[in-house]
Amino acid sequence: MKASQFFISTLKEAPADAEVVSHQLMTRAGMIKKLGAGIYSYMPMGLRVIHKVEAIVREEMNRAGAVELTMPVVQPAELWQETGRFEKMGPELLRIKDRHDRDFVVQPTSEEVVTDIARQELRSYKQLPKNFYQIQTKFRDERRPRFGLMRGREFIMKDAYSFDRDEAAAKVSYQVMAAAYRRIFDRFGLRYRAVAADSGAIGGDLSEEFQVIAATGEDAIVYCPGSDYAANMEKAEALAPAGPRPAAANAMAKTSTPGKSTCADVAELLGVPLATTVKSLVLATDTLNESGEIVKSQVWLLLLRGDHDMNEVKVSKVPGLNAGFRFATVSEIEAHFGCKPGYLGPIGLKLPVKLVVDREVVVMADWICGANEPDFHMTGVNWGRDLPEPDQVADLRNVVEGDASPDGQGALAIERGIEVGHVFYLGTKYSQAMNATFLGEDGKPAHFEMGCYGIGITRLPAAAIEQNHDERGIIWPDAIAPFTVVICPIGMDRSPEVKAAAEQLHEQLVAAGVDVLLDDRGERPGAMFADWELIGVPHRVTIGDRGIKEAQVEYQHRRDAAATKVAVAEILGFLKGRIGA
Amino acid sequence: MKASQFFISTLKEAPADAEVVSHQLMTRAGMIKKLGAGIYSYMPMGLRVIHKVEAIVREEMNRAGAVELTMPVVQPAELWQETGRFEKMGPELLRIKDRHDRDFVVQPTSEEVVTDIARQELRSYKQLPKNFYQIQTKFRDERRPRFGLMRGREFIMKDAYSFDRDEAAAKVSYQVMAAAYRRIFDRFGLRYRAVAADSGAIGGDLSEEFQVIAATGEDAIVYCPGSDYAANMEKAEALAPAGPRPAAANAMAKTSTPGKSTCADVAELLGVPLATTVKSLVLATDTLNESGEIVKSQVWLLLLRGDHDMNEVKVSKVPGLNAGFRFATVSEIEAHFGCKPGYLGPIGLKLPVKLVVDREVVVMADWICGANEPDFHMTGVNWGRDLPEPDQVADLRNVVEGDASPDGQGALAIERGIEVGHVFYLGTKYSQAMNATFLGEDGKPAHFEMGCYGIGITRLPAAAIEQNHDERGIIWPDAIAPFTVVICPIGMDRSPEVKAAAEQLHEQLVAAGVDVLLDDRGERPGAMFADWELIGVPHRVTIGDRGIKEAQVEYQHRRDAAATKVAVAEILGFLKGRIGA
Repeated sequence: MKASQFFISTLKEAPADAEVVSHQLMTRAGMIKKLGAGIYSYMPMGLRVIHKVEAIVREEMNRAGAVELTMPVVQPAELWQETGRFEKMGPELLRIKDRHDRDFVVQPTSEEVVTDIARQELRSYKQLPKNFYQIQTKFRDERRPRFGLMRGREFIMKDAYSFDRDEAAAKVSYQVMAAAYRRIFDRFGLRYRAVAADSGAIGGDLSEEFQVIAATGEDAIVYCPGSDYAANMEKAEALAPAGPRPAAANAMAKTSTPGKSTCADVAELLGVPLATTVKSLVLATDTLNESGEIVKSQVWLLLLRGDHDMNEVKVSKVPGLNAGFRFATVSEIEAHFGCKPGYLGPIGLKLPVKLVVDREVVVMADWICGANEPDFHMTGVNWGRDLPEPDQVADLRNVVEGDASPDGQGALAIERGIEVGHVFYLGTKYSQAMNATFLGEDGKPAHFEMGCYGIGITRLPAAAIEQNHDERGIIWPDAIAPFTVVICPIGMDRSPEVKAAAEQLHEQLVAAGVDVLLDDRGERPGAMFADWELIGVPHRVTIGDRGIKEAQVEYQHRRDAAATKVAVAEILGFLKGRIGA
Repeated sequence: MKASQFFISTLKEAPADAEVVSHQLMTRAGMIKKLGAGIYSYMPMGLRVIHKVEAIVREEMNRAGAVELTMPVVQPAELWQETGRFEKMGPELLRIKDRHDRDFVVQPTSEEVVTDIARQELRSYKQLPKNFYQIQTKFRDERRPRFGLMRGREFIMKDAYSFDRDEAAAKVSYQVMAAAYRRIFDRFGLRYRAVAADSGAIGGDLSEEFQVIAATGEDAIVYCPGSDYAANMEKAEALAPAGPRPAAANAMAKTSTPGKSTCADVAELLGVPLATTVKSLVLATDTLNESGEIVKSQVWLLLLRGDHDMNEVKVSKVPGLNAGFRFATVSEIEAHFGCKPGYLGPIGLKLPVKLVVDREVVVMADWICGANEPDFHMTGVNWGRDLPEPDQVADLRNVVEGDASPDGQGALAIERGIEVGHVFYLGTKYSQAMNATFLGEDGKPAHFEMGCYGIGITRLPAAAIEQNHDERGIIWPDAIAPFTVVICPIGMDRSPEVKAAAEQLHEQLVAAGVDVLLDDRGERPGAMFADWELIGVPHRVTIGDRGIKEAQVEYQHRRDAAATKVAVAEILGFLKGRIGA
């Protein structure tokens, strides 16, 4: 490919709304162009990256036995009403009415349509397992689209759906996909982690996120450097502390803490570690009647160590809270604690509440909590003596760096990541809702056991950039670079030798199947190099007037600090060695 | 590929709503699956065909110097309001409101978005010419979607848009695309014609349709067997008759034609050729005031020979009618002709009308027309004698088989076709509306000269089937077949020799880059052959128990009446020869 036959458009400045580096660099490198909030055109330079991502995903999905189809972007609402998602999904689901006033949606995913296909097409257990996938445009009407392709409204997703005869077979399909995802992410050439994720109401461990490691990632990834344990923050278990509770050393006392309504403020005032304080979180659960009106509410008090954060997913699994909970209202808090938030604690309540205590809190002695009186805290509080031993103890918190790994192989570390893939065991959630059955070996109809598997095709390049860039621009891994090699001739218009050498190398690389671009725009060297460093092509060959007289060209990898001189006669073999072609 | 790793689903019966053979066969062959009216999933077997069509289009577009990008499916209404299409387009344009109640459309084409990209990105004449294309999902909310992929609502289109500095350059870009389209359609392996089409208000001859020839096609294609003249019916010119008008032979007479209100009925009653009758068509044009109210209407009378049909496109170019016309109302007709429709003519009008006469009518003598009196016609009517020579003579009619070709190379023939591609010179229609300019060589801003170029990617397979099928199913051209070769082993499960031979041939073909499927489903021969004849794979190799003992297999092209025996040792070379691999 020659630049003159392509379209290159770079910008010196990033748009004002580009908050993250991938959004800035993709815009500056002419890879994407904003059309509206969260809606982008994929410009020629960006589309090449997307096509390479798609090709890798397609190859590995096919290799894993999945079969490609394409489901419609615009889907009739009827199927979405069968599963209830048409009503349940919020405004993220883009709804349309056609000329006949019938309801449609723009697909955010395709569980309904694929399950409809399966219930018509997969009639016998003999046709199972089957895994259908598509690489197709999706739309989610995000409330606050931002970060370019990272959280757009329109995007391309690879979504796959497996259908199996029973749970055991579904777990095999799941593992086949999880393995395919590892191959896919290996091929992208990115640092990533497959982390255990929460599988919600389905239960079990069959949910993994594929996270591209990047300091700017939105997600916290918990892993054990000494083992292969990795989980996302929602999922990562905080083990019960190993040691027993220390003996009580102090008497309980009410201490004046005027204006100090946070654990941090109290610890600072009293000159004690934050880890000696306990924070009180007040939740409520409601009992509804058949008309959906609240007939009874229950207030809950959760105790966590002052330096720990509540983990909502874990809290939502506590018996009694697992059918849904909310934060208590101020009036509920005042009725039960006789005090406004900020000075709450488990001692001296006006009305009884259900108490749930984090594993870490139950082994504390001489701790500090609110006194249920404005501007006062209790110090020297001890279980068994000052209040009864708790009935309900649970893992309620996010793990922190240094916590023991659940697999016993050392201490946990935390890094940040960008979720780009997800494999998920669905069970019979959709097949039950849509009564999608097949005839089993016993001649009886059974519901499909399903799994779903997504890769954010257009998000992946953004994640790759968040991981691989410097102050000059993008640094693509070879596998998904818009071009693998760029040839930069200097003064091609005035030097026939440079022109001939550049064109010969271009032809040789094309013949060798290398994705190469010859920059024949005639730009000055500075501007040309700046463009390619911004665009991030990994391998650059510069052919200059002086060098060519000595039969030499210059090679520089995008990560190299300086160029290497290579003889013209050797450059082809040299490049092939560098790119593994 | 092995069938066990793929998804094959065939039906004995076509769905009740499948009116055309391509819809029937694509559904029966498991290539498409209806989700809603005019909305289909592309099933694995069909998607393979679509991907092959896309690959050919992409290769030739790239070869022609066009650059691929992808524009959003969901597009903000603002740009569509700039060109006025948001209001002007009818309910075919699918409109959406997002969560913030902002207007969006689902793209039916992308002139607005690409022109918006051009006005931002193409700032100088030095960046021109540039041709951007995409292969992307489109939606048109057809009033009556039908015929499967032939007239669906959601479909895939390749749409390209060229940008040039002036008309001469735009015409070059147009010709480059027209040539690329010929290569593309040649490669599809279909019989097609590139036919001149009407370019509407733009004028000139720069509009061609690419029509796949099929008896079931919706469009009439006019061509000259003795030359390369071809045009669609709207465009094909009916030349002025060569000979002079014969002398009048009869006196004009009022003749009783009770109940005979059509030319055909009158000709039959009077025992004269239909070509001696003249039909009267009454149109009207309106003058509007600034508020859009009709302030004045003009009635027009068009005369055509009784055996000819009016051509609306040609009529819409007649001076005075070219700003829009309508059919006259009955009350307008009665006021001007003193008679209801069915017995109208140009003689003895109550009020004057503007007369436009077809080229063919102006050379008639002794003709027959309505008498402007119920149940009466005039016979022996002659120009100059019975009514003044007409002022306005024009080509108003559709050509018919046998008319002289406009290029003077013989008589016209007519066949039917399916429009699958269109190249069109747009001029500055969109660049003016959106004020899309570049800096010209003279330093002044100028509007882009544009062209647009479409190919119906998902319509093409349907057109291919309309052209290539028999009573057993589809007959794909090699280039776009879902598989080029199918290997049908008979009794693979009981004969290790058959299994080994089938798998060896499969591996050899895969290694040779041939797109082959090994049918390892274990179906009985009859069902297996019926499937592949329905699906339409062009080349079939059958490997049977008996033949393999004699080291023979059977080859049959989908069009062959019988199989040919080929030695196992020769089959690979034989197949390569047949498919040109």
